[in-house]
Amino acid sequence: MNPLLEIFSQGEELVTGQIVDTNAAWLSQQVVACGFIVTRHTAVGDNMSELVSLLLEIAQRADCCICTGGLGPTSDDLTALAVAEAFGCPLIFDGLAYEQIARFFANRHREMPESNRKQAMLPQGAQRIDNYWGTAPGFSLKHGRCWFVFLPGVPMEMKHLFQEQVLPLLPERFSLRPGVLITFKTFGLGESALQELISVIEIPSSVQLGFRAGTDDVHLKLLFPFDFPKQDMIALIDDFSELLGDFVFAIDGLGSAVGDFVFEVDKKMTARNCTLAVIETISHGLLAAKCIGCNWLISTNYQQSSINLDAGVDFMVIAESMAHEHQKNSAADYVLVQLYAGDKECLHNKEKSIHIYTVLLTDTGLHRASHSIAGPIQRKQNQAALLALDLLRRYLNVTL
Amino acid sequence: MNPLLEIFSQGEELVTGQIVDTNAAWLSQQVVACGFIVTRHTAVGDNMSELVSLLLEIAQRADCCICTGGLGPTSDDLTALAVAEAFGCPLIFDGLAYEQIARFFANRHREMPESNRKQAMLPQGAQRIDNYWGTAPGFSLKHGRCWFVFLPGVPMEMKHLFQEQVLPLLPERFSLRPGVLITFKTFGLGESALQELISVIEIPSSVQLGFRAGTDDVHLKLLFPFDFPKQDMIALIDDFSELLGDFVFAIDGLGSAVGDFVFEVDKKMTARNCTLAVIETISHGLLAAKCIGCNWLISTNYQQSSINLDAGVDFMVIAESMAHEHQKNSAADYVLVQLYAGDKECLHNKEKSIHIYTVLLTDTGLHRASHSIAGPIQRKQNQAALLALDLLRRYLNVTL
Repeated sequence: MNPLLEIFSQGEELVTGQIVDTNAAWLSQQVVACGFIVTRHTAVGDNMSELVSLLLEIAQRADCCICTGGLGPTSDDLTALAVAEAFGCPLIFDGLAYEQIARFFANRHREMPESNRKQAMLPQGAQRIDNYWGTAPGFSLKHGRCWFVFLPGVPMEMKHLFQEQVLPLLPERFSLRPGVLITFKTFGLGESALQELISVIEIPSSVQLGFRAGTDDVHLKLLFPFDFPKQDMIALIDDFSELLGDFVFAIDGLGSAVGDFVFEVDKKMTARNCTLAVIETISHGLLAAKCIGCNWLISTNYQQSSINLDAGVDFMVIAESMAHEHQKNSAADYVLVQLYAGDKECLHNKEKSIHIYTVLLTDTGLHRASHSIAGPIQRKQNQAALLALDLLRRYLNVTL
Repeated sequence: MNPLLEIFSQGEELVTGQIVDTNAAWLSQQVVACGFIVTRHTAVGDNMSELVSLLLEIAQRADCCICTGGLGPTSDDLTALAVAEAFGCPLIFDGLAYEQIARFFANRHREMPESNRKQAMLPQGAQRIDNYWGTAPGFSLKHGRCWFVFLPGVPMEMKHLFQEQVLPLLPERFSLRPGVLITFKTFGLGESALQELISVIEIPSSVQLGFRAGTDDVHLKLLFPFDFPKQDMIALIDDFSELLGDFVFAIDGLGSAVGDFVFEVDKKMTARNCTLAVIETISHGLLAAKCIGCNWLISTNYQQSSINLDAGVDFMVIAESMAHEHQKNSAADYVLVQLYAGDKECLHNKEKSIHIYTVLLTDTGLHRASHSIAGPIQRKQNQAALLALDLLRRYLNVTL
């Protein structure tokens, strides 16, 4: 029997609905992939007696509990106090935690407020979980049958702490028989189009098929039970790979580390040792912003209404000549230019679509793509940035 | 004392993290605005004993419970059965519910599957909640101190049923006294610094103080009880406004609609009827990307390593001359330039900080700001973009 796990989220902003608890879903996916059975999610506000009674309940029901939130410096952050009260382990000053918090402020040349000292007070017997991303250290401790892990509620901090410091501890503490999770990371098709594409494949009933649509990609997931024959698994993965083709930018679960869309483009461009200059319009700087830390992107230019929108204008031709022109003035090996057709009304109206024209100029010539994109303006912006990078990705795929 | 309410969500796809429970947050906002105190959110999977024990728990803890999910036609939809078992009220065939379900299929010229008959079986004594949006009728019933409302989990159906059929019933069943929520949206200080800043204010014990730190801002919230004297409320809000000063970019809850950080900058720039050109470095296009849809931003340029990093170089002086130079070639009224000092190692190392120099050139002259920022490269990028826009916001604040 796989161990039972509960997710416990703390924060007044959660129970009052000010924010949606995305942490709980993210953590659940992680631990299900490890082999846990998630039985419950609970969220409570900043209320001492609720917190204490919930901790005591969970200590009797679950083998593991991941808790997020309530570790901040302010008076409404009660988690450590509630743990102390529920499990009878008084808060003790942790010198190393204090040093880390102090260093966090020192690195930013800011004075450390006295209230942050509170974050260095940890329940007696707890193991500290270092936080290099914010001021609140996490901690873990066992009570009853349950091993509790407490993490900050800020999603970015929580994710780093979980992946880097909690995940490695799980196999030591629990007998886990995780299945094998294979994730096809795709770009360019929606969930239902993907589902239709793969509908010809017969999936064994023991294999779980799932989809997750994000803002930047759509994941197709296959969860194989731990005892599924390896050869059959490889054959099935091959079938999927063939059908999904170039829409897949990475496959996770096969051993080598893969990242998000930009990470994969970065890998390919870095291997190619080439540089890129970009002219953006509708993506409005977001293409470059997504490529922070990518040394091959040497410049971007965004300019409003750079084109005369006369009827009959051929945007692709203009984009091509802009790319040639820009290459003369730029030190970059490749030039990527994206223009769009559509007036201000089309841009802002989520019911209306605009047409984008993307051109990539490389040493092997010009490569073109054009798409219609719709939705709120921020979605149009994001899709445009990704579609431009996708033209680059597909070019690198073919020529590498 | 306002009535206590819990949100209860059912579905295997929730506890395994396949989908995020947005229903819970949406419902919470609705009922908090009505005057309920939300004490807990709980999500459980398709497990009979978990469902039964949770229903019994809630019947003792809360005055009202809104439940979503588990009303579908398939075998894993267990909610009505669990209610029958937990509260000892057998399922009874509801002829009117059956007619409605049959009509749903007839209207769509589809044959009704036999499994949908199950959705017309309601616990004895329950009030049916008609569903004109899907096949699953909701229902309500009282057990112990708690009035339970069961709604389908599909967000659109749930929202319609709640707003049209549940909301009107609440004032009849509960004595509700909604409070007033005031939110100070701030930028530039962390949670703990804010708390320290306002520590001199004596907050009446009936007023609830809360904080919420996001990636782009920090909210300070004051929740006033319904009977709090209006004059005292205004006086307290004034005290907070004075102390928080320019760190506040908007106050929500005073009647006029307010938005996020960029929305508020956009409002001010649009009122001023001026245009802006930007030179970005560390923000890498993100400043412009955040301003999508803002017509006053006419261009951005991002270039790598545009400066010779000789020792002794004065970045602020360089930024100023770049701003003057750029103004000559640009049609923009204002020019915003941001440079940073720090090598590649400092940029990528989350432990290390970089120093940013921001210059705003306007018709009234030069305005400067400099900051140290640390953390992962994406955090540095985001902070740099926001701090540049904040220099603009503060300038507009002073001169408007």
